[in-house]
Amino acid sequence: MCKHAPFMDASLNLLREQVCQANRELPDSGLVCLTWGNVSQIDRERGLWAIKPSGVDYLDLKPDDIVILDLEGNVVEGSLRPSSDTKTHLHLYRSFPAIGGITHTHSPYATAFSQAGRELPCLGTTHADHFHGTVPVVRALTPEEVAADYEHFTGVAIVERIRELEINPMHIPAVLQHHHAPFTFGKNAADSLKNSIALEMCARMAIETWKLAPAANSIPGHVLDKHHERKHGPGAYYGQGKA
Amino acid sequence: MCKHAPFMDASLNLLREQVCQANRELPDSGLVCLTWGNVSQIDRERGLWAIKPSGVDYLDLKPDDIVILDLEGNVVEGSLRPSSDTKTHLHLYRSFPAIGGITHTHSPYATAFSQAGRELPCLGTTHADHFHGTVPVVRALTPEEVAADYEHFTGVAIVERIRELEINPMHIPAVLQHHHAPFTFGKNAADSLKNSIALEMCARMAIETWKLAPAANSIPGHVLDKHHERKHGPGAYYGQGKA
Amino acid sequence: MCKHAPFMDASLNLLREQVCQANRELPDSGLVCLTWGNVSQIDRERGLWAIKPSGVDYLDLKPDDIVILDLEGNVVEGSLRPSSDTKTHLHLYRSFPAIGGITHTHSPYATAFSQAGRELPCLGTTHADHFHGTVPVVRALTPEEVAADYEHFTGVAIVERIRELEINPMHIPAVLQHHHAPFTFGKNAADSLKNSIALEMCARMAIETWKLAPAANSIPGHVLDKHHERKHGPGAYYGQGKA
Amino acid sequence: MCKHAPFMDASLNLLREQVCQANRELPDSGLVCLTWGNVSQIDRERGLWAIKPSGVDYLDLKPDDIVILDLEGNVVEGSLRPSSDTKTHLHLYRSFPAIGGITHTHSPYATAFSQAGRELPCLGTTHADHFHGTVPVVRALTPEEVAADYEHFTGVAIVERIRELEINPMHIPAVLQHHHAPFTFGKNAADSLKNSIALEMCARMAIETWKLAPAANSIPGHVLDKHHERKHGPGAYYGQGKA
Repeated sequence: MCKHAPFMDASLNLLREQVCQANRELPDSGLVCLTWGNVSQIDRERGLWAIKPSGVDYLDLKPDDIVILDLEGNVVEGSLRPSSDTKTHLHLYRSFPAIGGITHTHSPYATAFSQAGRELPCLGTTHADHFHGTVPVVRALTPEEVAADYEHFTGVAIVERIRELEINPMHIPAVLQHHHAPFTFGKNAADSLKNSIALEMCARMAIETWKLAPAANSIPGHVLDKHHERKHGPGAYYGQGKA
Repeated sequence: MCKHAPFMDASLNLLREQVCQANRELPDSGLVCLTWGNVSQIDRERGLWAIKPSGVDYLDLKPDDIVILDLEGNVVEGSLRPSSDTKTHLHLYRSFPAIGGITHTHSPYATAFSQAGRELPCLGTTHADHFHGTVPVVRALTPEEVAADYEHFTGVAIVERIRELEINPMHIPAVLQHHHAPFTFGKNAADSLKNSIALEMCARMAIETWKLAPAANSIPGHVLDKHHERKHGPGAYYGQGKA
Repeated sequence: MCKHAPFMDASLNLLREQVCQANRELPDSGLVCLTWGNVSQIDRERGLWAIKPSGVDYLDLKPDDIVILDLEGNVVEGSLRPSSDTKTHLHLYRSFPAIGGITHTHSPYATAFSQAGRELPCLGTTHADHFHGTVPVVRALTPEEVAADYEHFTGVAIVERIRELEINPMHIPAVLQHHHAPFTFGKNAADSLKNSIALEMCARMAIETWKLAPAANSIPGHVLDKHHERKHGPGAYYGQGKA
Repeated sequence: MCKHAPFMDASLNLLREQVCQANRELPDSGLVCLTWGNVSQIDRERGLWAIKPSGVDYLDLKPDDIVILDLEGNVVEGSLRPSSDTKTHLHLYRSFPAIGGITHTHSPYATAFSQAGRELPCLGTTHADHFHGTVPVVRALTPEEVAADYEHFTGVAIVERIRELEINPMHIPAVLQHHHAPFTFGKNAADSLKNSIALEMCARMAIETWKLAPAANSIPGHVLDKHHERKHGPGAYYGQGKA
């Protein structure tokens, strides 16, 4: 059935399955049209990571279609061409060891913020539950960067912005790239996908909120901290704990 | 199959099933993303009530996952941790004996009103059919309240506001908590869920109405009263009566 | 199975089925939440008409639940209480012999126009394909009308407005009642439902159009006439003709 | 089963199937209500093309319902009346040999741009991936054109505008006809449908972007060119190449 099966390392099957599953959830999440998005995940112990192949329909995706790469960007397993955004994911994984998964979409509301070049402040507890503060905008690339290596420098600009703002990318696991679209991060592929869903809804709610209160801005720090801590802090009591 | 079955009181099964069912309807209602919402219901005769466990996916919910509590907030049955919003529900049940069910969501339009800190006036008969007047905003919590017991004081602030406005919470069964999101009430879980659906649609229609008529405000009292009375008054003729 | 079957006139079965079917399509059409809408149809030869029972969920509806009335408003067949809007439908059928079906919903965009008290001009050919000109607003009822017979006077106000504007209700088969919501007409139940779908989409498109061009108004008469005539005029060439 | 089968040329079955399939995908794409849209495709070698029949529900469509025409506009096969927009498609196929498929819808956001008479600039990379620059508005028809041959002159006005702007219709495969709605092009039916989906999403994102940044306009040329070239240029590396 699968011509690549003989060359595949079965110990990577779980990684392939998890990345396949997260990508397959993109259309139902309402975050993507056509093939406008990709999810990846890294196995830090082995230094290998997996990403969607480029331009393949989500519902046609099988685990064996997922492309495995190393941290130099070499394809290790898989016969399909990896996502055109592969170098952006790679630079993020190389720069921030805490990142375990990355989701990139062109979801409409978050993309509108990207196109507008507007950061997304924390207007309510929905935002605070996922992002501990304002989601930043990443600058546009220069003509030189685009010409030299567009996708790599997209990653460079993202990393530059996160460091400039002294953000912990696991506390505010999202950025809005100017002229382009959002990237979100997480502990793994599924977690980064959840953050994409949250980002899109927070962006949508912000637009509706500003219709009702054009001057609405970040909520008080004690509410922001409380909501984030009850879900993500050391004494978190949201969810069922480790189980 | 279920390790908790031996310890469960079968006479509570209907309560568990009704609360499970109302929670399972949340995703299809369009009111929630991820796990952003919870529904509860009380059995007033026994003084016991039931709520969704925290952070569990709706479609995975089974009746045995539902947590049963008493009116002191003690878990009586169920091995999962109850919703992080449990103390808010508890304070509402303790304060208003007429409330039989409570729904909390982060539905986008009602949440936009909450984030904007704007009350929702009755702009038409759709609103009047469910809410006999303006849906109020509940004040934000103080740093002291957040630090002391966030979810409990959320309930305190809601009750304080309803009493201050001399509202019957079964006539206007909804509030918009500033910076946060809506809570709705009802005769039981299913009824409170219907009021969440109605609140979200009225909030959405209000935003669209104000685009067309920025000064639109509450409809005349004789239309408000008529629509509410024909559905909820002593001579109600909407629906099939007791059947 | 059905306790009413012995008393039912089988020659009315087709009418019941068509009205049941049109009502059952309401939730998937996106026009209704909960039980916020009703569709009816008349058999002009027999002077009998059929409408949804009040407050029954659409997906539970069976043909035998549909209520049959005469043109005096008497229930002729069916054991359920007819829609609370029955007298409005009745007055429309009595006033305009060309109307064969009526749909009433609280669809969000058309209801926003109703709440705003704004008429809907023909901004493009989508509108012209269904409505040969501006969809009018019907005035709010007076306290005396509401007290005397709310649903009847709703019909009276609609008929008054259509006559005042010298509209043929089959050429502009829709009205927007102020503070309330839309009513649409058609050759039969299914046709009136199509006009509700078209009205909702035209209302939505109008709101988006005015964001882009606040002064946009009715399209030129020669385009309006052409689009309406190619679909509804004597030389209509849209669709498959009589088939 | 099918009364036309004896007269049908089996070598056209693939064309019929592809056009049938693209039309059947319209409702799920969210681009159409009722029967508001049609897709066609041409076989350039044989000089024959196929289009949806007029006014037929998408989900009822079978390949044998698809109408085959020649480049003079004569129906060659099929017993149903072709789409009322047939002459518009015909004129486009005759004018631009590179066009292999055409989709026409009344999708809400792109139609709002058409109704507003506003062109759609490239506000981000989502747009650049599909349209290499601003999507133009086509002028309204004159009373004389409407009276003489409405659908033909719709095609004439589209071709006139594309030539006036010196656009390659495969590089910017979309137009917005004033007062009416969009037309998109592609290599074949499926490709033109993808461009309709992309156009609708870009139109929607533009409206949201302008809420956040009213002065947002075309992205820098080096980003526009890069995104278009990586997907459509001679060195394209998006997707899986020829496979």
